[in-house]
Amino acid sequence: MGFANELRNQYAEDWDAAVNHPFVDQLLDGSLSDENLRRYLVQDYQFCDAFTALLGQAVASAPSLPSRLVFARVLGAFASDENTYFQDCFNELDVPEADRTAPALGSATRDFDNLMRSALATRSYPEVLAVLLVAEWLYGDWAARAGDPSEWPAHAKHAEWIRLHNNPEYNAWVTWLREEFDAVGPADAASRERVAETFAEAVRLERAFFDAALLPAEVF
Amino acid sequence: MGFANELRNQYAEDWDAAVNHPFVDQLLDGSLSDENLRRYLVQDYQFCDAFTALLGQAVASAPSLPSRLVFARVLGAFASDENTYFQDCFNELDVPEADRTAPALGSATRDFDNLMRSALATRSYPEVLAVLLVAEWLYGDWAARAGDPSEWPAHAKHAEWIRLHNNPEYNAWVTWLREEFDAVGPADAASRERVAETFAEAVRLERAFFDAALLPAEVF
Repeated sequence: MGFANELRNQYAEDWDAAVNHPFVDQLLDGSLSDENLRRYLVQDYQFCDAFTALLGQAVASAPSLPSRLVFARVLGAFASDENTYFQDCFNELDVPEADRTAPALGSATRDFDNLMRSALATRSYPEVLAVLLVAEWLYGDWAARAGDPSEWPAHAKHAEWIRLHNNPEYNAWVTWLREEFDAVGPADAASRERVAETFAEAVRLERAFFDAALLPAEVF
Repeated sequence: MGFANELRNQYAEDWDAAVNHPFVDQLLDGSLSDENLRRYLVQDYQFCDAFTALLGQAVASAPSLPSRLVFARVLGAFASDENTYFQDCFNELDVPEADRTAPALGSATRDFDNLMRSALATRSYPEVLAVLLVAEWLYGDWAARAGDPSEWPAHAKHAEWIRLHNNPEYNAWVTWLREEFDAVGPADAASRERVAETFAEAVRLERAFFDAALLPAEVF
């Protein structure tokens, strides 16, 4: 078994709780309220900066040109498609400008942002990959639950978020990330443990981020 | 006058010698021999790795999301268009596989590769920008000499290299780089001097790189 699957199994409790989260259930059946979707997207959009930087660090830290170019292509696509979805939803959900650019951050948002920036600061390719892998693979796993597009919810605000994480290019990218992570997993126990901790923390925060999206407004 | 123009003027001798280099003259009038073009492209292709990494570092080191996204889009385009040109030319010019992947490097190639990797290692945004700015602006300047596309040489091996550095998107990218460089130029004299040295070395090496492309084969 590769390092990626080994870690996913090791942290299966948080992983499965995130993939099968009530937030995902509601997104997939189209019953997610605008209030919860709005809060989720407003918080998630705040990762764009650190996530883009992390992809850039992956380009800079990758050990070969073919690997750099994979991230380069993903960055190019990310800079257009994903941003479009956020802007469209923000408009549809009447998100005020202040909430798009500088909302009050939830604690899971802050912690995840910090995790990304810490991984970036190490410049360690396995560390950077660990965070990217969890973010992308876990999203691929929940989006895979959506099944055939004919079964997806009717509204674009739900369906487009599924489509962005459930399409042939996205699935190929997640597979590539997993294989790349397996290939560069550190051999020495101490480095391996550090990468595993980063992976575990990312999974824990993905779960916490979904939890936060469904908290009652007066608690969040 | 901005920092960018200040530096270009300061190093005008090397800048103008590169922009008006006999290599460029021959490229623009279509008289460049296949032997010289082949050597130039084989050497230039060896920068792809460090240059891609440097763009990735720019994504990671930029101070804001809008700036990161500019580099992200350029990386996306670079990962497709520019690579296509090299592969097409390598095929047309019968470049053996070994010369595409691991040719003997000329001294200007080695020095420029080192300069890019040094800038990358600093993680300093102005340092990274200085190298990118020289590489892109100077190429925009020589390509601007080509004038209207109707005056470009007939062969794609020449014309396409001009087009890649003389089109509205490319010109906008160079203008953006210059403005960004002006905006983040360090205020303290020591940092400013370090960035100026990086800029100067990049200009010197662009000139040396064109020199090397025209050296007699037995000297290169």
